[in-house]
Amino acid sequence: MRLANFNTSTYSNRGMALEEDINVTNKYYLDNDIAVIYKKPTSVTIHKAEYPGPHEAIIREAYFKTPSTTDYNGIYKGRYIDFEAKETKSKTSFPLSNIHNHQIEHLKRIVRHGGIGFLIVRFVTLEETYLLFEKDLILFLNNNDRKSIPYEYFKEKGHLIKIKYAPRLNYLEVIDKYGGLYDEIK
Amino acid sequence: MRLANFNTSTYSNRGMALEEDINVTNKYYLDNDIAVIYKKPTSVTIHKAEYPGPHEAIIREAYFKTPSTTDYNGIYKGRYIDFEAKETKSKTSFPLSNIHNHQIEHLKRIVRHGGIGFLIVRFVTLEETYLLFEKDLILFLNNNDRKSIPYEYFKEKGHLIKIKYAPRLNYLEVIDKYGGLYDEIK
Repeated sequence: MRLANFNTSTYSNRGMALEEDINVTNKYYLDNDIAVIYKKPTSVTIHKAEYPGPHEAIIREAYFKTPSTTDYNGIYKGRYIDFEAKETKSKTSFPLSNIHNHQIEHLKRIVRHGGIGFLIVRFVTLEETYLLFEKDLILFLNNNDRKSIPYEYFKEKGHLIKIKYAPRLNYLEVIDKYGGLYDEIK
Repeated sequence: MRLANFNTSTYSNRGMALEEDINVTNKYYLDNDIAVIYKKPTSVTIHKAEYPGPHEAIIREAYFKTPSTTDYNGIYKGRYIDFEAKETKSKTSFPLSNIHNHQIEHLKRIVRHGGIGFLIVRFVTLEETYLLFEKDLILFLNNNDRKSIPYEYFKEKGHLIKIKYAPRLNYLEVIDKYGGLYDEIK
């Protein structure tokens, strides 16, 4: 994890583009009362802090922690939403080293409890962003020993999300179409 | 916000007891596959970091941010759960300065979108912990200009949660009884 993840001035950094797109999209959802979805703060363990004033604190030594859950969660049309978003520069596959095992276990749990869980993966070089539902992620993992998911699998099982003006990355459109929300209405 | 919030060695600190009780309870829910509810990491803004090695980072200057949402969220029986937990040493009332306005707005949004939102408030000196649903919090705020919610209001509208062996603070029992989960089954 690099500091680039934390300064708004470095959002032009390629590695931040997807996160920024999702944050802008979530803000659009919030402002238009469509959904309430937030990125969780980055987990840090604080070892030392200073207190220059009664209501002031400066953290002087802290470390990044491995996250035990995914980065994003919230609510949409009464349903719990939970996902992880990752970019890859590879043109051919998404390396599974990008996702921790406990994040996969977390997504499984969420779906077992009635939530909607998925990955958003951007192939930066191809300029394509896919939503892959947990069921299709697990289907792949159960049937493969590979350390990466081929690009073709995203083409086949994933759902392409196009960049638009607003909302910039309308991933909830995929949920509307394929996320099981309409199953209950039927 | 004090450093005591971050060292497990200081969990004996009185101000941490409720948080610790909820964390232990959430772990029980997780381990027994009852619910998936986590405390969000504390929000910090990182200004400086060092990189002693390729996979090492030490944060050297960071600041606490005012949270824009509540501390806890997750899923239970298919429903989105969202709450804030606070302690007070007062025997007579819960000071509203403990809750930020945007946290109240957040709880309202959650409920509007079909989630279950509430506060857990512990009166430390009285050794009593109450769950107060968002609707009763808003009812109070709409009808009062007071800067604190009287203890009597918690006795009347809140739901007492007793400390037990396991789960230590079974707040989901209140959700089962009064949280509207059974409305859908009827």
